[in-house]
Amino acid sequence: MTTSRRIKLKDIAEKTGYTVGTISKALQGRDGIAAETRETIEKAAREIGYIANAQAGGLRSGSSKTVAIIVSDIANPLFSILIKNIISQLDALGYSAILMDTEEKSVKEEKAVISALGKNVDGILLCPTQLSDRSIELMKQNGMPFVLMGRRFEEIDADCVVWNDRHGAYLATKHLLELGHRDIVMLTGYSHISSAKERYLGYCDALREADMPVRNENIFEINIATHETAKTIQWLLDTGASFSAMLCFSDYVAWEAIAILNQRGLRVPEDVSVVGFDDIQSQMYFPYPLTTVHVPKTLTARRAVDLLMDILEHGPLKRRQIMLNTDLIVRGTTSRPR
Amino acid sequence: MTTSRRIKLKDIAEKTGYTVGTISKALQGRDGIAAETRETIEKAAREIGYIANAQAGGLRSGSSKTVAIIVSDIANPLFSILIKNIISQLDALGYSAILMDTEEKSVKEEKAVISALGKNVDGILLCPTQLSDRSIELMKQNGMPFVLMGRRFEEIDADCVVWNDRHGAYLATKHLLELGHRDIVMLTGYSHISSAKERYLGYCDALREADMPVRNENIFEINIATHETAKTIQWLLDTGASFSAMLCFSDYVAWEAIAILNQRGLRVPEDVSVVGFDDIQSQMYFPYPLTTVHVPKTLTARRAVDLLMDILEHGPLKRRQIMLNTDLIVRGTTSRPR
Repeated sequence: MTTSRRIKLKDIAEKTGYTVGTISKALQGRDGIAAETRETIEKAAREIGYIANAQAGGLRSGSSKTVAIIVSDIANPLFSILIKNIISQLDALGYSAILMDTEEKSVKEEKAVISALGKNVDGILLCPTQLSDRSIELMKQNGMPFVLMGRRFEEIDADCVVWNDRHGAYLATKHLLELGHRDIVMLTGYSHISSAKERYLGYCDALREADMPVRNENIFEINIATHETAKTIQWLLDTGASFSAMLCFSDYVAWEAIAILNQRGLRVPEDVSVVGFDDIQSQMYFPYPLTTVHVPKTLTARRAVDLLMDILEHGPLKRRQIMLNTDLIVRGTTSRPR
Repeated sequence: MTTSRRIKLKDIAEKTGYTVGTISKALQGRDGIAAETRETIEKAAREIGYIANAQAGGLRSGSSKTVAIIVSDIANPLFSILIKNIISQLDALGYSAILMDTEEKSVKEEKAVISALGKNVDGILLCPTQLSDRSIELMKQNGMPFVLMGRRFEEIDADCVVWNDRHGAYLATKHLLELGHRDIVMLTGYSHISSAKERYLGYCDALREADMPVRNENIFEINIATHETAKTIQWLLDTGASFSAMLCFSDYVAWEAIAILNQRGLRVPEDVSVVGFDDIQSQMYFPYPLTTVHVPKTLTARRAVDLLMDILEHGPLKRRQIMLNTDLIVRGTTSRPR
């Protein structure tokens, strides 16, 4: 049972002084409404975040028993494993899942959230692009219960389930330092993404602890949704950059990095050590032994669904941030430098 | 615009002689209906395949602009790549996607189809378990447009997009024979799955062409949704079976096979050659060069969505089976036997 409240035509009526009937006609683009009136109503609707409801019946019946899952890349096995776990949890509770992909684009994210609101879902599980907070605002304005996954905002009040990214990156960097690596390239996401920023801080923590300088020329912020990893590594090799190890934002980025290093005749770990993040192969047999940082995927799905259900039952309480532990898993892609 | 027709309360009324009001009360479990009447109505509803509609409003408005995608394992990257492509196609047409996972279980498949029907989706894209035809029947009874993906029924009229599985497996087996392999183990799905059966036939085609016998002890039908690959390979190695090559049902099965072979100290391809099926790394950088059979994933998504949209617009025409080409991609996991 949701206690949240969607923006209704009545709210626009209160704001504008027009009747619900006039507002309904205006927003449906029907005749008999003066252009100026229509403009006033449309502006008011935009301002308070009104979303036309694609399934009015669903709204009347209260619950559509549907949750929207919005992630940045469905094809990344980290997300498909998370999604499988979430869908299994939701299914046991009688909920279906609508799935949407942002490709790390804010326009797509906003479109996805609007579509989910219009379909009258009961809640939204979102891995936000963090390029804007418009979609968070839309969910709040419409009283839509939501939980963020994997990323959090510093200044916005929002329930979330994240990982201890800083500690994970610290452990990975420390491991490379202990093996004797000094030039450690970091391939991370843009710093507006909280997990990218925190992994960067963990990398810095380990270097500082070892009395080593953080060298800016070793840090590469890349678009993790496109294939910038490949380009970055090509560039590093073409310019003769000196490095013996790489800490990657994700296993997915690490796979790409290793594929390109191999294409260029470099062996992993003999020539370059590589560490990933996510530990995809904890839930999947895999022919390649990647050293990586483990994040608890089944637990993340469970916590996110539990939190959403809690909001659905009891309404938004105080802000809850759940941070789950990370661990270093040493497999075969790290060794002492030559 | 869909021309299909859902089973309505009126249909139960026609069958039973009770009024729509009585039927509605009976199916909602409301008071004032004799137990015997309720039983008669429920039985009639079951028989003609009536599904209670979770969103009556959606039904009245005609289209929910939603398509259900039902696959056997969301975590298998073949499916997550397909799903990403399908969602992108649907999004461009203004449709959202509900995602469901059967885990290759007929009970889950039927539950997924019933849920999709109840949610008044416009159409269903299904990779069927083929363990029963109940869910196909339910979709037909309810006039629900649907397209099967990757698998087809011999005796049931259903639109589908499949791959030339037989030719793909033939090419893979021929490749292994030409390298000099004689003992080629085949790890395939249960033969009620059309793609498994057809890949088996392709394997036989190549052996027969080379005047080699098909040896039953080399064929292993496994449950591809669980981790039977690992168990099967453990068993093969424990019993000292003689084989120098493996043809796997999927890349996912091949990854598992190689992981276990490596764990047991066998190198690929030096000790055992391995071929997959799907070519996941055609759409994903990957640090492991698997020899495999390519299937066109983007094209499959496009053809399946096009076919579904065609049915939505023009209604079910004659049965259409689209078969897409397969190709052998030789990478690094096959070589001459020692």
